[in-house]
Amino acid sequence: MKILLLGSDGYLGYATYHHFKKLGHDVLGVDNLSKRQREIDCGVRPLNERPPLVDRNLSVEHFEFTKLIEEFEPDVVIHYAEQPSAPYSMMGRMNAIETQKTNVLGTLNLIHSINPDTHIVKLGTMGEYGTPNIPIEEGWITIRKGFRKDRLLFPKKAGSWYHLSKVHDSNNLEFACRNDGLRVTDLNQGVVYGWQPRFHYDAIFGTVINRFIAQAVAGIPLTVYGRGGQTRAYLNIEDTLQCVQLAVENPAERGEFRVFNQFTEVFSINELAEMVARVTGATIEKIKNPRKELEEHYYKTKNTNLIRLGLKPKYLTDDVVASMVENVKRHKKDINATTIKPTITW
Amino acid sequence: MKILLLGSDGYLGYATYHHFKKLGHDVLGVDNLSKRQREIDCGVRPLNERPPLVDRNLSVEHFEFTKLIEEFEPDVVIHYAEQPSAPYSMMGRMNAIETQKTNVLGTLNLIHSINPDTHIVKLGTMGEYGTPNIPIEEGWITIRKGFRKDRLLFPKKAGSWYHLSKVHDSNNLEFACRNDGLRVTDLNQGVVYGWQPRFHYDAIFGTVINRFIAQAVAGIPLTVYGRGGQTRAYLNIEDTLQCVQLAVENPAERGEFRVFNQFTEVFSINELAEMVARVTGATIEKIKNPRKELEEHYYKTKNTNLIRLGLKPKYLTDDVVASMVENVKRHKKDINATTIKPTITW
Repeated sequence: MKILLLGSDGYLGYATYHHFKKLGHDVLGVDNLSKRQREIDCGVRPLNERPPLVDRNLSVEHFEFTKLIEEFEPDVVIHYAEQPSAPYSMMGRMNAIETQKTNVLGTLNLIHSINPDTHIVKLGTMGEYGTPNIPIEEGWITIRKGFRKDRLLFPKKAGSWYHLSKVHDSNNLEFACRNDGLRVTDLNQGVVYGWQPRFHYDAIFGTVINRFIAQAVAGIPLTVYGRGGQTRAYLNIEDTLQCVQLAVENPAERGEFRVFNQFTEVFSINELAEMVARVTGATIEKIKNPRKELEEHYYKTKNTNLIRLGLKPKYLTDDVVASMVENVKRHKKDINATTIKPTITW
Repeated sequence: MKILLLGSDGYLGYATYHHFKKLGHDVLGVDNLSKRQREIDCGVRPLNERPPLVDRNLSVEHFEFTKLIEEFEPDVVIHYAEQPSAPYSMMGRMNAIETQKTNVLGTLNLIHSINPDTHIVKLGTMGEYGTPNIPIEEGWITIRKGFRKDRLLFPKKAGSWYHLSKVHDSNNLEFACRNDGLRVTDLNQGVVYGWQPRFHYDAIFGTVINRFIAQAVAGIPLTVYGRGGQTRAYLNIEDTLQCVQLAVENPAERGEFRVFNQFTEVFSINELAEMVARVTGATIEKIKNPRKELEEHYYKTKNTNLIRLGLKPKYLTDDVVASMVENVKRHKKDINATTIKPTITW
C-alpha cells in the first residue's frame, strides 16, 4: 500500500514510519521539521533523540504539497503533521495563532489536495471532548427532541487553543466527507505513553506518564497538578500503531466521517502517580494546577469501534512501567529536570 | 460609549457605523478594504456604491491591531470584519483557506488583544446550524443521558467553508469566555435584506431577497435554486441595527458566551419568490441548485433572547418589497444581470 505519512519526524511519526515499513508498505514521510524548531525555541529536548526522519521536507500548508500528492498517489494519508502541544498553544497570542494556522489550514489544504478516493487517517485527541457530565460517544451523538431525532457531531468542550484546533479540523473534515465524498477516519486519541524515539518528558511536549517516569529516574518527586482527580483516557504507543494499522486496513467508506476513540484505559492523575511511585519508590508532590480544568469530575467514554475491529490492548502494568524506567535510566544524564516544571499557565 | 466597529466598510458596517454615530456614540471604524478587492477579483459591484468608510485601514489579524485596541480602549467591539460569502469560500482551495485564515485567525487575534472587560459583539450566522432534524436552540443545548445532563454548545452542521469558519469562531470565543473570562455576544444572524449602501445582488455576495428584487427590476426571472423548499431565517437590515444595539446596550456578563439567534421570520425560497413575483409581476424560473443542501426539510428555530430584550420586528410585507423595488429602480442601469447567475458549485 502507498502510505503518505505527514509528520514523520515526531514521537508518533517515527514509530509509525518504521512500523509500516516493516509491514512492507511503500511509506513516504513528509515533515517540515517545525517541531524541532519549537523544541529549540522552548529550550527542551527529547530523550532518545534521533536524526530527522523525513523523505520530503515540506509543510502541509504549502502549495507544493498538492503536487506531491498528485505525484505519489497515496492509497492512504496518515496525518500527524500538527502542532501537538496544549501548553505550547497557551503561551501567548503568537502561539495560539501559529497552532490554529498550522493545524486548521494544513488540514484544509490536505482536504483540497486529495483524490476523494484516498483514505485520510487523521490524528485528533480525546481532549477535544473535554470532560462533559454525560458519557462521551464516538464522534457522533443521536439527539432526540419529542418525536424527532438527528445524528449530529458530539458537542465538544475543548480546553486549549491546541485542542480547539483539532475540533475545527474535525468539523472541516466532516463537511468534506458530506459535501465532497471524502473518506476520513478521525482518531480521537487518548494520552500516549511508551518508550520510542523522540521521547518527551518536559512540561510542554511530554505526556504525563512519560513525565512521571522521567521524574522517578531523575530522583525528584512526581508532580501532580492540583488535586489529581483529573481523569483521562490513555494508551501505549504500541497500541497507537495497532490502531492506526486497523484504520488503514479497514478504510472508511466514501463520504463517511468515521470517528474512533483511540485509547485502552482510563486513569486519574492520582492513580498514575501512585502506580509509578509504587514501582519506582518515587515520592508524590501536589503542585498548583497551571491549567484551568476540573480536578474532580465525571468521566465515561467508550472505544467500541476499535475493539470491534480487533484492537488487543496492551495495558499499563507494573511491568510496563518498570520496562519504561529501564529505558529512561540509560538516558538519565540527559534529563534536564528544570524543563519538567510547568511554566505555562492557562 | 466607545465603539470599535470592525468591518465598517461593508453592507452591515456602513449602516451600523452611521446608526451608532447618530445615537451619539464615539465610533471608530476599522476595515482593511479586502472585500472591495474581492469584489474586483470576482467582477461584481454593489448597487448604491459609496466611498470607503474607514477611520483606520487595518486588518484584524495584524499585529498593529492590538496597539489600536490599547489606544482606543473601547467599551464594546462590534466584529463584522470577516469574509462574508459562502459561494466565495467554495470557489477553490485558495478561497477556502483565505476565508478560514481571515475569519478564524482574525477573531483569535481579537481575543488575544482585548481587555477582558470589553464586550465583544460578534457576527455569526444562522447557517452555522445547517438544517438539523431537531429544533435549533440558541447556541446551547441541554443534553440528558439517563439521570445525567450537561449544557453544551449546540452541535452545528454547516454547509460551506465560510459557515464553518463561523463555527470555529464560536468555539474559540466560547473557550475565551470560559478560560479567560471574556464577555461575548455571538449573533447568529439570519439572511439579511434591505436597501442600504453597498447593496449586493450578485450570486456571490448578494443575499436572496435582494437578488430577487434586482432580478425583478432588471426584468429577468427570479431564479430559484432547485425545488425551493430550502427554509431559512430572515431579517430586515433595520432589525440588524436594532439587534446589535440591544446587544450593545445589554452586555454579556464576564465569562458569559451568549448566543442570540438574530432573525425575525422564517421563509422558504419558494415563499420569497412568490412574494416578490406577486408585488412586481416577475416570473419565477427554477434552475439546477449549485449548492449541496436539502431542498425539503424540517426547520424550526427560535429568537427568544432578542425578543426578550425588546426586539420589535419589522416584518417583510408587500410594502417593504415595493419600497426596496423603488430604491433599486433608481439604479436599474447599473444592474449587471450576468453576475446574478450562479457560477460557483458546491
